[in-house]
Amino acid sequence: MNNPFFKNSGPFKLSKFFKQNVEYSYLLDEIPKDEKLIHDIKNLDDATPDDITFFHSIKYKDLAKKTNAYACITKSDFFHLLPDNCIKISCDNVLLLTAMITAKFYPDSMIDDNNHELLNINEKFKDIISGKNTYIGLNVVIGKDTKIGHNTIIEDNVIIGNNCSIGSNVILRNSIIEDNVHILDTAVIGKKGFGFIPKNLKNIRYPHVGYVHIKKNSEIGCGSTIDRGSLSVTIIGENTYIDNQVHIAHNVKIGNNCIIAGQVGIAGSTTLGNNVMIGGQAGISGHLKIGNNVQIGGGSGVIKNIANNSKVMGYPAKDFKNFIRDAK
Amino acid sequence: MNNPFFKNSGPFKLSKFFKQNVEYSYLLDEIPKDEKLIHDIKNLDDATPDDITFFHSIKYKDLAKKTNAYACITKSDFFHLLPDNCIKISCDNVLLLTAMITAKFYPDSMIDDNNHELLNINEKFKDIISGKNTYIGLNVVIGKDTKIGHNTIIEDNVIIGNNCSIGSNVILRNSIIEDNVHILDTAVIGKKGFGFIPKNLKNIRYPHVGYVHIKKNSEIGCGSTIDRGSLSVTIIGENTYIDNQVHIAHNVKIGNNCIIAGQVGIAGSTTLGNNVMIGGQAGISGHLKIGNNVQIGGGSGVIKNIANNSKVMGYPAKDFKNFIRDAK
Amino acid sequence: MNNPFFKNSGPFKLSKFFKQNVEYSYLLDEIPKDEKLIHDIKNLDDATPDDITFFHSIKYKDLAKKTNAYACITKSDFFHLLPDNCIKISCDNVLLLTAMITAKFYPDSMIDDNNHELLNINEKFKDIISGKNTYIGLNVVIGKDTKIGHNTIIEDNVIIGNNCSIGSNVILRNSIIEDNVHILDTAVIGKKGFGFIPKNLKNIRYPHVGYVHIKKNSEIGCGSTIDRGSLSVTIIGENTYIDNQVHIAHNVKIGNNCIIAGQVGIAGSTTLGNNVMIGGQAGISGHLKIGNNVQIGGGSGVIKNIANNSKVMGYPAKDFKNFIRDAK
Repeated sequence: MNNPFFKNSGPFKLSKFFKQNVEYSYLLDEIPKDEKLIHDIKNLDDATPDDITFFHSIKYKDLAKKTNAYACITKSDFFHLLPDNCIKISCDNVLLLTAMITAKFYPDSMIDDNNHELLNINEKFKDIISGKNTYIGLNVVIGKDTKIGHNTIIEDNVIIGNNCSIGSNVILRNSIIEDNVHILDTAVIGKKGFGFIPKNLKNIRYPHVGYVHIKKNSEIGCGSTIDRGSLSVTIIGENTYIDNQVHIAHNVKIGNNCIIAGQVGIAGSTTLGNNVMIGGQAGISGHLKIGNNVQIGGGSGVIKNIANNSKVMGYPAKDFKNFIRDAK
Repeated sequence: MNNPFFKNSGPFKLSKFFKQNVEYSYLLDEIPKDEKLIHDIKNLDDATPDDITFFHSIKYKDLAKKTNAYACITKSDFFHLLPDNCIKISCDNVLLLTAMITAKFYPDSMIDDNNHELLNINEKFKDIISGKNTYIGLNVVIGKDTKIGHNTIIEDNVIIGNNCSIGSNVILRNSIIEDNVHILDTAVIGKKGFGFIPKNLKNIRYPHVGYVHIKKNSEIGCGSTIDRGSLSVTIIGENTYIDNQVHIAHNVKIGNNCIIAGQVGIAGSTTLGNNVMIGGQAGISGHLKIGNNVQIGGGSGVIKNIANNSKVMGYPAKDFKNFIRDAK
Repeated sequence: MNNPFFKNSGPFKLSKFFKQNVEYSYLLDEIPKDEKLIHDIKNLDDATPDDITFFHSIKYKDLAKKTNAYACITKSDFFHLLPDNCIKISCDNVLLLTAMITAKFYPDSMIDDNNHELLNINEKFKDIISGKNTYIGLNVVIGKDTKIGHNTIIEDNVIIGNNCSIGSNVILRNSIIEDNVHILDTAVIGKKGFGFIPKNLKNIRYPHVGYVHIKKNSEIGCGSTIDRGSLSVTIIGENTYIDNQVHIAHNVKIGNNCIIAGQVGIAGSTTLGNNVMIGGQAGISGHLKIGNNVQIGGGSGVIKNIANNSKVMGYPAKDFKNFIRDAK
């Protein structure tokens, strides 16, 4: 992901990050004399030789082996899983150090408030929007023939395509919305995810520098919430329909032509293929991979990966035929 | 249901619908020479000899046998289940053709936006409403001693009785609300349901020409969503209390004196009797019939009909005693 | 709880309550000649020798034995469980009589509407708040460096500390919010709970004279709802993080350093210890006690008390190891 919205205050040198006295203990590889400038912090698979990355869970070892990152924050146990030429930084709390470095690159990403005065829609967008009492932030683009409802707040960093309809009492931020998308009333899209490093007395919030990308012809139901990614994008695929009161956590990626019924919840960093159908109130754990053409029955609780063309139901979700058999 | 809100652009002749080149294949009975005008499209049991209806699932065969409709869209396999004098129209995709004909009768039902300028409440209703920044659409009636909160949007086609309270940030549309009903903050009532014909790259939205009918003395909790019916009414019975974050889908009919706890979800076209109690987070599948005096435990997933006077719990829901026994 | 917000219209004499003709049957102990004035109605453990209390469920017998209340509404079967010097009032419907007496002490608690004109934020708070279209009720205090979003409604009786951020489209009422708390968009906090005495044709609402207390460094997610207590306080502990679309019912008490993921629901009067982690969509029944350091897996349905340091999952929730074993 190249960050389209947040201002990158880099590049920085590794030695700069680690010069000052910090709260966490770490062990740094020897930094080469001809130290490079680091331009960004990215996921293992997105990182280029100009970037720093992080590797906190064995789940990602296959990505780690192939990373192109210049440097990587990780545990010393994982050093041997990274390429030789990648500078390793060992840390007790990988996510905490990652959060702190992300915040250095993107200091604005820590704040979801609008401190500045919003523009009243009547001033800037009055010719294209009929909604009453709609406010619009900075860095907003609205396409042709797009309708915006009443009391809707479009905060900073939102690009909306043509022929969209945005309902009333909606809140948008840090989102790219393609053509012909329908966002129903009271949805909240693009706010920071529920990601933080737990700490007694005062948790540490993880920066969310990502955004939400809703592809064309999709629909998002009333009261649904879609959080933006932390270092990645939260994606809703083309022609995917999402019902009311659904929660899509940060970094989730949903394919095309999916149908997601009311009150479904999808936890962080899970990926869904194309043509996935999910019944009402089903829940999917985080960091899972759901294949193409999968059907998940209403009320299911999915706690492991699901292969292509599967039909599952139950809690924990199992093959649909077994669910029906066991229910008798 | 006689449609109280949407303008019917009929009557039409059958031959008119099927003259033009359409996207779906169909097979039409011979149309009598003295072809009648069709006045409306209705469900099997509501249709009169002036109406067209549709029959898409074997579940409805008992209603099909007794329909009074002049014509019926169905599969050719189902022809023998309809009365002899009913003109049969066979179609590969019954719901798609039904949707298209419904849209011809009610072209306005496809749009949930307010394109016109809403009236500011201060102009028309200033003597009866104290809420700030409340907007009101066309065809709205508000009874005596009814209170409306702040930032609430009453879109077109809403009738509210006497002594009601409508909270703040509420959105209403196409709803009949009887006396002494309480609608709490941020509820969204009367929007189009999650009904569409799935199609790759671009789903086809089913028209929702129905409305929501909330009977007297009822209460709807914060953040709850109640969708209006497609060709029918979504009903909340008298003295029925619904807690926060509940989702009631289109065409659901709930009886009197029911108690529905937080985060419950009821899928489309399900019917509940009187005196039904539902614990928090329970879900009920669509097209089911739940009897009178039924108790459904919190967290249950109901996937079949429930007889009168039953007490069930579990996922899938079973007799309460068995649930407790199996839990040990 | 000493009531910080509602005006107490007492003190009253017991004989006054029971002089008039009332709808419910009751049996009253002999009232002493030198009858005392009753100052308040409180829970069994909070009541002082100046208060009346109520005892409706055997669950609370240990608290009943030790109550200091001057009088107690209860069933005659429970008389022997109360201290000798406590005046006993026997009633067919303990909660109904309790509700009626509470309403006499706190007549304002029955109404959640704002009948009076709210102040426009620009008038009173214009120097400290940048949100557009924000309205503020009576008895509101807002601390230093606290930010309030757009279209947010702060009704009566709200105290907000320093360095807080309140999002947009939020609704607050009867709440104490300590320093450094973050309340995200569209949350609704402090409204009356889902408590009433079921009655055919017209339920009787139980007064909610309590409030919500959110301790410092906590966070409440988008669209979450937290109801205020009936005769008690709903508490969110220090440094407790709550995700989107969570519902916390009246009288719930949550400890410090808890993490509650999206779409969780906690029913009325349940208590959670410190360091409790709850996965997405889990539900907890009412009147339960969840210990310290408990982990509850996503999707779980908890229907009994959970001991300290437990890890549970499933519906009904069981030991985590057993859940994994049974899932195979």
